Amino acid sequence: MSRTDPPAWEGTSSDPNDEQFGHVITPTEIEDAGDFRAVLVGEPYDGAVIGRRGAREGPAAIRRALAGVKTHHFDEGPVAGVADLGDLPVEAYNDADDPENHVADVQAVVADEAAAVYERGALPVFLGGDNSLTVGNVTPLLGGDDSVGVVSFDAHLDCRDPADGPTSGTPYRQLFDAGLDRLAVVGARHFETSTAYADFLRDSGGTILTADEVGRGPVETADFALDALAACDRVFVSLDVDVLDQTAAPGASAPTPGGVTTRELFSMLRRVAADPRVVGFEVVECAPPLDDEDGRTVGAAARAVAHFLAGVTSRD
Amino acid sequence: MSRTDPPAWEGTSSDPNDEQFGHVITPTEIEDAGDFRAVLVGEPYDGAVIGRRGAREGPAAIRRALAGVKTHHFDEGPVAGVADLGDLPVEAYNDADDPENHVADVQAVVADEAAAVYERGALPVFLGGDNSLTVGNVTPLLGGDDSVGVVSFDAHLDCRDPADGPTSGTPYRQLFDAGLDRLAVVGARHFETSTAYADFLRDSGGTILTADEVGRGPVETADFALDALAACDRVFVSLDVDVLDQTAAPGASAPTPGGVTTRELFSMLRRVAADPRVVGFEVVECAPPLDDEDGRTVGAAARAVAHFLAGVTSRD
Amino acid sequence: MSRTDPPAWEGTSSDPNDEQFGHVITPTEIEDAGDFRAVLVGEPYDGAVIGRRGAREGPAAIRRALAGVKTHHFDEGPVAGVADLGDLPVEAYNDADDPENHVADVQAVVADEAAAVYERGALPVFLGGDNSLTVGNVTPLLGGDDSVGVVSFDAHLDCRDPADGPTSGTPYRQLFDAGLDRLAVVGARHFETSTAYADFLRDSGGTILTADEVGRGPVETADFALDALAACDRVFVSLDVDVLDQTAAPGASAPTPGGVTTRELFSMLRRVAADPRVVGFEVVECAPPLDDEDGRTVGAAARAVAHFLAGVTSRD
Amino acid sequence: MSRTDPPAWEGTSSDPNDEQFGHVITPTEIEDAGDFRAVLVGEPYDGAVIGRRGAREGPAAIRRALAGVKTHHFDEGPVAGVADLGDLPVEAYNDADDPENHVADVQAVVADEAAAVYERGALPVFLGGDNSLTVGNVTPLLGGDDSVGVVSFDAHLDCRDPADGPTSGTPYRQLFDAGLDRLAVVGARHFETSTAYADFLRDSGGTILTADEVGRGPVETADFALDALAACDRVFVSLDVDVLDQTAAPGASAPTPGGVTTRELFSMLRRVAADPRVVGFEVVECAPPLDDEDGRTVGAAARAVAHFLAGVTSRD
Amino acid sequence: MSRTDPPAWEGTSSDPNDEQFGHVITPTEIEDAGDFRAVLVGEPYDGAVIGRRGAREGPAAIRRALAGVKTHHFDEGPVAGVADLGDLPVEAYNDADDPENHVADVQAVVADEAAAVYERGALPVFLGGDNSLTVGNVTPLLGGDDSVGVVSFDAHLDCRDPADGPTSGTPYRQLFDAGLDRLAVVGARHFETSTAYADFLRDSGGTILTADEVGRGPVETADFALDALAACDRVFVSLDVDVLDQTAAPGASAPTPGGVTTRELFSMLRRVAADPRVVGFEVVECAPPLDDEDGRTVGAAARAVAHFLAGVTSRD
Amino acid sequence: MSRTDPPAWEGTSSDPNDEQFGHVITPTEIEDAGDFRAVLVGEPYDGAVIGRRGAREGPAAIRRALAGVKTHHFDEGPVAGVADLGDLPVEAYNDADDPENHVADVQAVVADEAAAVYERGALPVFLGGDNSLTVGNVTPLLGGDDSVGVVSFDAHLDCRDPADGPTSGTPYRQLFDAGLDRLAVVGARHFETSTAYADFLRDSGGTILTADEVGRGPVETADFALDALAACDRVFVSLDVDVLDQTAAPGASAPTPGGVTTRELFSMLRRVAADPRVVGFEVVECAPPLDDEDGRTVGAAARAVAHFLAGVTSRD
Ligand SMILES: [Ca+2]
Ligand SMILES: [Ca+2]
Ligand SMILES: [Ca+2]
Ligand SMILES: [Ca+2]
Ligand SMILES: [Ca+2]
Ligand SMILES: [Ca+2]
Ligand SMILES: [Ca+2]
Ligand SMILES: [Ca+2]
Ligand SMILES: [Ca+2]
Ligand SMILES: [Ca+2]
Ligand SMILES: [Ca+2]
Ligand SMILES: [Ca+2]
Repeated sequence: MSRTDPPAWEGTSSDPNDEQFGHVITPTEIEDAGDFRAVLVGEPYDGAVIGRRGAREGPAAIRRALAGVKTHHFDEGPVAGVADLGDLPVEAYNDADDPENHVADVQAVVADEAAAVYERGALPVFLGGDNSLTVGNVTPLLGGDDSVGVVSFDAHLDCRDPADGPTSGTPYRQLFDAGLDRLAVVGARHFETSTAYADFLRDSGGTILTADEVGRGPVETADFALDALAACDRVFVSLDVDVLDQTAAPGASAPTPGGVTTRELFSMLRRVAADPRVVGFEVVECAPPLDDEDGRTVGAAARAVAHFLAGVTSRD
Repeated sequence: MSRTDPPAWEGTSSDPNDEQFGHVITPTEIEDAGDFRAVLVGEPYDGAVIGRRGAREGPAAIRRALAGVKTHHFDEGPVAGVADLGDLPVEAYNDADDPENHVADVQAVVADEAAAVYERGALPVFLGGDNSLTVGNVTPLLGGDDSVGVVSFDAHLDCRDPADGPTSGTPYRQLFDAGLDRLAVVGARHFETSTAYADFLRDSGGTILTADEVGRGPVETADFALDALAACDRVFVSLDVDVLDQTAAPGASAPTPGGVTTRELFSMLRRVAADPRVVGFEVVECAPPLDDEDGRTVGAAARAVAHFLAGVTSRD
Repeated sequence: MSRTDPPAWEGTSSDPNDEQFGHVITPTEIEDAGDFRAVLVGEPYDGAVIGRRGAREGPAAIRRALAGVKTHHFDEGPVAGVADLGDLPVEAYNDADDPENHVADVQAVVADEAAAVYERGALPVFLGGDNSLTVGNVTPLLGGDDSVGVVSFDAHLDCRDPADGPTSGTPYRQLFDAGLDRLAVVGARHFETSTAYADFLRDSGGTILTADEVGRGPVETADFALDALAACDRVFVSLDVDVLDQTAAPGASAPTPGGVTTRELFSMLRRVAADPRVVGFEVVECAPPLDDEDGRTVGAAARAVAHFLAGVTSRD
Repeated sequence: MSRTDPPAWEGTSSDPNDEQFGHVITPTEIEDAGDFRAVLVGEPYDGAVIGRRGAREGPAAIRRALAGVKTHHFDEGPVAGVADLGDLPVEAYNDADDPENHVADVQAVVADEAAAVYERGALPVFLGGDNSLTVGNVTPLLGGDDSVGVVSFDAHLDCRDPADGPTSGTPYRQLFDAGLDRLAVVGARHFETSTAYADFLRDSGGTILTADEVGRGPVETADFALDALAACDRVFVSLDVDVLDQTAAPGASAPTPGGVTTRELFSMLRRVAADPRVVGFEVVECAPPLDDEDGRTVGAAARAVAHFLAGVTSRD
Repeated sequence: MSRTDPPAWEGTSSDPNDEQFGHVITPTEIEDAGDFRAVLVGEPYDGAVIGRRGAREGPAAIRRALAGVKTHHFDEGPVAGVADLGDLPVEAYNDADDPENHVADVQAVVADEAAAVYERGALPVFLGGDNSLTVGNVTPLLGGDDSVGVVSFDAHLDCRDPADGPTSGTPYRQLFDAGLDRLAVVGARHFETSTAYADFLRDSGGTILTADEVGRGPVETADFALDALAACDRVFVSLDVDVLDQTAAPGASAPTPGGVTTRELFSMLRRVAADPRVVGFEVVECAPPLDDEDGRTVGAAARAVAHFLAGVTSRD
Repeated sequence: MSRTDPPAWEGTSSDPNDEQFGHVITPTEIEDAGDFRAVLVGEPYDGAVIGRRGAREGPAAIRRALAGVKTHHFDEGPVAGVADLGDLPVEAYNDADDPENHVADVQAVVADEAAAVYERGALPVFLGGDNSLTVGNVTPLLGGDDSVGVVSFDAHLDCRDPADGPTSGTPYRQLFDAGLDRLAVVGARHFETSTAYADFLRDSGGTILTADEVGRGPVETADFALDALAACDRVFVSLDVDVLDQTAAPGASAPTPGGVTTRELFSMLRRVAADPRVVGFEVVECAPPLDDEDGRTVGAAARAVAHFLAGVTSRD
């Protein structure tokens, strides 16, 4: 299996004044990844989902939506310098007779491929795919001299025990075992996780910032998340779209109420991405087949990428 | 007619670390109601609705959703000590030839049954059913030495004149006539009630806290609602799901925009329930047949119960 | 072509205590327009839309929804003194073989008709229709001694170049050319407009208040918008329903996430309308055929009119 | 004894563009009091103070400070239409051998004089003087058909039992006995009042809004105070300067920390004064001899009057 | 040297309805310390201060002020169950020829004495004295099975290197060396500490919450501080009065602007004290000789104790 | 007359870990001004003050205070790269027989000297002196191709007519006459300016953001001020210390209540200074002889400089 070539990016507007991501994203190859401010990496796999599947279609749908999004942020100006590496070779695992058995294989494949991106000094934006991919996306950062933290925007803690094999519910337990130093979960929902996992996370040095706290100040909460990772040299940012309220992101495996708004999420992503310690980003659990007819979850995921990139732009 | 037995509660997760309400809710009987922190009481009746019906299916659907909700609140820890008394014998009234004529009968039946619960010192959580049931749920609290107030989370005031018979729009006028001392309506919407009823409520010592005020601070608004009932010895809390914004609760008789978010509602319920004067709670007007395919209104109603119980837990 | 007669307005409630807009709106004729606090003017045209059409059905649908909305605002009391002038003669342009060619004609027709309303000293509430109608609605205010500003609630800037003919994306560029002094856009969304237009607007003395800023304080943002027009003698207020978040207003041509809530919008409209310099209002881009089954976009548009009128009432 | 003539008001600025209260306040007599928007009434008495005296010098000092304050409020424009009736004949009671015995006499004298002001339809602004004067200032409003409430900005509840004679700590207990319907205390401080009085006030239908609540939103708190008096036809507003934080108002009998800021107070006064039910205002407990050298307490008291008047102006 | 007997506590009010701390605080001895909810422990020592001295007079002055403070908190009701153990035997060290040399001795004496309090299961409220005393106050908690954290309300980090002997600037560096697990500094001021110490603290797992963050939400900030200590079993709370803004607490060694208000501080202390993990509290650096004439710093310190006790009361 | 040499800067701490501004500020000469991130320029003149004088002593006192301020900002890290050019030759004008006649002369001298600084591409931080100096400080920026705006933190508008000669109350009217394009006044106080000047400023395209607005969100208000200058190429920032509340800055000519806190001011200065269009800064009206004994106004002014420099640092 090999990487899939990126699609030809093009805009959807006929007005020459309009600059959309479709106009500025450049297909590229791994050798040149370091020449860009950020590189997209598709991961069309959802074999590890406990619940409703569909996230394998995320990369293609998010790219289509992003192509029509304009590049202008009112405070940061136009976003530029973004390339696309195409998809990692994980598609085939979805159709295996027994995909559950292949989760660990996929995580290993992804870790290898992600390592190649980080080695070029590139900042990857992974387009999942399910949340099991996080293990592959973050693993290459661990084990070196730098301490590593993750800011996870998620309604859940995803710290289940992988004793019976990894799933989309086990990534952070796996990563703590592999050397992750800190985890800050932003947007966690009451009554959607179990006491055992909340206890585990707190004992592991994790920080939980609930959706309630986001509601009292998204920028402040983002700052607190970064503060909680003050001792980390490098930070990875993960977005599970179910951190959004059910009304805004029905296209997730298990949407729930009491979540954050798209406006709050976009604001937090931009803020977090402005921290120069941030070296990678992912969007996971966006399942187009489960979305509303108007594609609102996919549309939000595409704009989440744009806002993250605006934050990266602000570092200059 | 007689009470219906509670269903066998069971969880939906196969992870032994997961504790869901389905694992901890105990079927019980009225004699033992006082042994629990709170008891569920179903009221599957919607014969008094002006508008779209469907709330009769609320108790079953809310129970199903609640069974899969986890018991952990990040601040209060796991909720426990909840039992289920099954449904009150009101189902048959729905199918009467002329249900409108039976509203008063239903209110009387419910009042008798609710009295039995209060007499055991239990804290009932009524799962409606339509808003006419409030009369039965609150009546047993009136007429004693204690002054009584209601905090009503509702887009409307429900103070219509019951001259032509009680409906889901008349409960608080009926209750004021029966001795209710104070009413604080939280989340009331401009342009969804009439001047005559706003005047009536203000003249009756009621307090109106609009959805706008909730938006400026849900916890503060909950505190103000309790302050407005400072002179009351006992407080009942009512949740009409149409207090939620139309995007969050389409499964109500008449959903409208400009409402509160699920996040705000959950926060307010927990806060109010922490007040030791609170002796009962109800969820009404949740109509599963009118809900979105994803069951978001029912899901929000079930979690509203969970957050109320978290508040009760915090009293310990 | 000639104006269409207004419909017979009637309420939907049978409770004599209920006062709805259907009970108090009076059909009238242009000669008597000045006798009312505000007059409705329908503009059933959507030939200039770039994207999904349907706004031509806005006037009829908003009127139907408004008929059932109650007149009571908790702070301002009942709204009264509203009349309906019926629809302007623009319906026929929708069905032309090549509607795009008729946009300028429609703008001219509308400007003539709108001038007649302003001349009577009446305050028009235009029910569109698409955003190209703004040119007709505002043009009569320009060219006199008074300086004129617009507060535009819109996700977009609508400052495209009309070189290839006017569209629903060009109105403010056209109006600046015609003498508009100031524009404050409230609720603008990052990544939904192009750098070229943001630059144009800022160079033209425009002010951009993003949806983020609304989220930090809707009333404060409304005040800032009015402050930005401090030098203007007369102010027109425009509402493109796509300023609302996609969850609240799916019935727009291009709904997007990250928008304002209905609660915020209603609050801002009331605030802005209280300014005595405000001389006109419009609701555009509300497309009933694109709306959710529950008609939430239309319902929000009707209540937006109600809240604007509450602000006008508060001037007394 | 008789009223004292008002001083000749004059401004302190030599710039003809400057309009100060000293330029616009008109000395007048009781017969003409109804011709103005508001009338100042001095009450130089502090014989009822428990603690440090000095408030008898309040009227003269506040007038001197106010003379130099400009009349412009950025939102309401210039304040106008204010007159001065001079001082009530209470000065002599201060120097009595045993002033404590004369408190009731002073209250009676003041009530007679205040009644004359209200009878002319004038809106009095009483410049105290100590808090015992409140009894005289409010008494004329009681006993008629109108229900009456007071919004009291005070760190304390002032509900002591007047069994041993009235003092500056007894006014609201006296007024409840005389028929006062409602009291909302804004800015009350924890640990500065006794449980017995908090219980008394809550049992009497009073509402307590702490300084903490002011800190979370002064305008919202002012609205809640007015809401708490929704059933009242007429409202009197009282300002005891010790509601301010000790840093801002050292010139009070017993300044304490944890209080409200001048900015918050000014904002609340303007908001409350905009309510058309408000028929009178007083500033009490401002003691110039206890003030800082820079006269900050007196300066704040004078500006409090200005902000109250801005609110009255906004009713037009 | 031996402990000093506590003073006879008495109130200052003659109204029998008034309950002040002077009425309810009981002198006691170490043997009975565990019978109370909290016990006061005076520490009249300021030999370690770098800068202006005077804190040795803190215990006596804070006790005098507290005696006149009423016991009522509007939300928690009256505070009770407080005793006074008198002063620790440290007074003599102030007058030594070379007090600097005795700091370590004082810390050792205090640690012994404090250990005796903790051993009785009592909750000590230490009244300092300077910040070097913190070492003695916290040391007995370290070295056991429980992990220990401190919430330090302070403008500074107090993490200087004690190489040249301990001072009031070294306590947390000393405590980290002795086994302290976590430190959260609340109210830290920009430009009042050095980069080297900020780096040290972050590397040691400390959390810094600036005064800016307090300003955006004191309760939220208190929650974040507790979250940052989520892994700790026991928590000590320290208040250096210079965390307050210079306007509110001039009676500190080095008061600075940009600080927190008394209202914010009181709110945070109550919130933090409600956490059942909190086992001790201290007030340090309150120097009566440096205070304003009106004693505002001492008054704030006394009320800080009251608010802390209200939080402890709320645990019941 | 000639420039005064800068003082020898030195720190006040003996801890080698402490880095204070006294350690890092470098005396320099005009030729080398462009080699630094910012250069201090003293302006010891107060001959134009209407009211209490003393600001001539500002430069020396602010420098002394700044020398002891540490260089660390928790978010931006240590500030560096600052030099001192000494004082401009204006001291002698203070002692003239009739200083009022020399204001225009001083403004001309200052303009010449300031021009020399701007020409080197340096960013000046002017330490006044009174507010008449603003004319000299800003004049060199006018008249070129760049449009110029000022953000003025001031309780007043300072737009008096200079017909009778310039004063500390006329600078912005003078600057508008000289070509200033925009002015945003932040922290303006109600009742401290006259209607005539508010009207003048609004007609001149100025924006007024009151202290109330600052209280609702200092960072947001700073953003709005910058938005109001969106059309400007270069921005100058002016701080009149009387924008601070009277409690925080008694050392101003005419301190008043209702102002902004030091915390808010510091936050806003850092935010504004981060805008790359900002080319200069001044602190005026800080009068040490009028300050409290504890030097709080001077201390706040010195830290205001530090926070401004932190914002400049953040541009890198
Ligand atoms: Ca999740
Ligand atoms: Ca997840
Ligand atoms: Ca309802
Ligand atoms: Ca209802
Ligand atoms: Ca639009
Ligand atoms: Ca538009
Ligand atoms: Ca008082
Ligand atoms: Ca009082
Ligand atoms: Ca300190
Ligand atoms: Ca310290
Ligand atoms: Ca000034
Ligand atoms: Ca000035």
